[in-house]
Amino acid sequence: MPRKISESTVRRISLYLRTLEALEAEGQETVSSEELAQRGATTAAQVRKDLSLFGSFGKRGLGYEVSDLAGRLREILGLARPWRVALVGAGRLGSALYEYEGFARRGFEIVTVVDADPAKVGTRWGGVLVRPEGELVEALREHAVEIAILAVPGEVAQEIAERVVEAGVRGILNFAPVHLRVPDEVAVKDVSLVVELEALSFTLSHEGPEA
Amino acid sequence: MPRKISESTVRRISLYLRTLEALEAEGQETVSSEELAQRGATTAAQVRKDLSLFGSFGKRGLGYEVSDLAGRLREILGLARPWRVALVGAGRLGSALYEYEGFARRGFEIVTVVDADPAKVGTRWGGVLVRPEGELVEALREHAVEIAILAVPGEVAQEIAERVVEAGVRGILNFAPVHLRVPDEVAVKDVSLVVELEALSFTLSHEGPEA
Repeated sequence: MPRKISESTVRRISLYLRTLEALEAEGQETVSSEELAQRGATTAAQVRKDLSLFGSFGKRGLGYEVSDLAGRLREILGLARPWRVALVGAGRLGSALYEYEGFARRGFEIVTVVDADPAKVGTRWGGVLVRPEGELVEALREHAVEIAILAVPGEVAQEIAERVVEAGVRGILNFAPVHLRVPDEVAVKDVSLVVELEALSFTLSHEGPEA
Repeated sequence: MPRKISESTVRRISLYLRTLEALEAEGQETVSSEELAQRGATTAAQVRKDLSLFGSFGKRGLGYEVSDLAGRLREILGLARPWRVALVGAGRLGSALYEYEGFARRGFEIVTVVDADPAKVGTRWGGVLVRPEGELVEALREHAVEIAILAVPGEVAQEIAERVVEAGVRGILNFAPVHLRVPDEVAVKDVSLVVELEALSFTLSHEGPEA
């Protein structure tokens, strides 16, 4: 298994997989590194370099076999098996995330939902019972949750994260616009809508004629 | 105005602003670079280096004045004036984004909503009329939209992006899990939930005892 794979390489691998899935849906059987590059905003050389980190794929002059490469990228990304996911926070964002078909399709199965709102606790989302926030640690343990999606207000995110870690969860997808302090063995990915919008307003504010 | 500011610097500036806003809410008047660093997952030296790119802030030994620094970071990030934003895609994710209070609070005002679903077209979200997708370009032009949030399916995202660009929009916040091909003068920020989750599953799959 390769040791030092950069975050940006992983993101590109994920985008290549998106492209391969689209090509599979269109019935295309082989793809060149040029085509993968064009759809993924990079160069053919970068595609070949990224893939070479994980082994030997494709045949010179023939390109890659779409389904085969997709399968191998899924393995690389850890998608060859399902992941047990908790949704913490059942507000509007949480609800949109719950309904997001892309998660289940890729094996991220939401097995428990936790919320602080008594009006939501006890209701069912699909087959999943919404548990009270006071039972967060128990709910995560009972369901052997591996990844927690935090869709909670920034003010409570750190405290929630600590209880998530206490329950043994080692992966957090954080939507709160705060930096979470967690032990080194816990992986956190942040999705901050405000940070992205601010990066955009920064770019639009500072672009000159030569930008 | 500084020329070459890295994407990661801008993201850290955005996080410093989050911290300053939290401190303002708590009534704290001054802050050290150490405290900003701790809350922002970086070092005090990095905080000082990042801020020094934009001028001279704070006093040696006294730290930074919270409200003053927050105001200056807002200016740097282009938040000293409101932005006219369109929401393209009024599904569940679009609905969650529309309700997301963090946008309006930071001056990102959703002035028009566009959707392909005839059942949604003609309804009002707050004071905002949902326009049909066929009128996308007109809606963006009429409202002098500067930033478009794309919460549409991946299959249509590229075509929608092209019409958004045609309407003169120069900033796109893209939630579709595809790479958008746009002219150089258009800034795109991607928020791909699936890419983040896959980066997490990659990390969890490949971590060893020494990770």
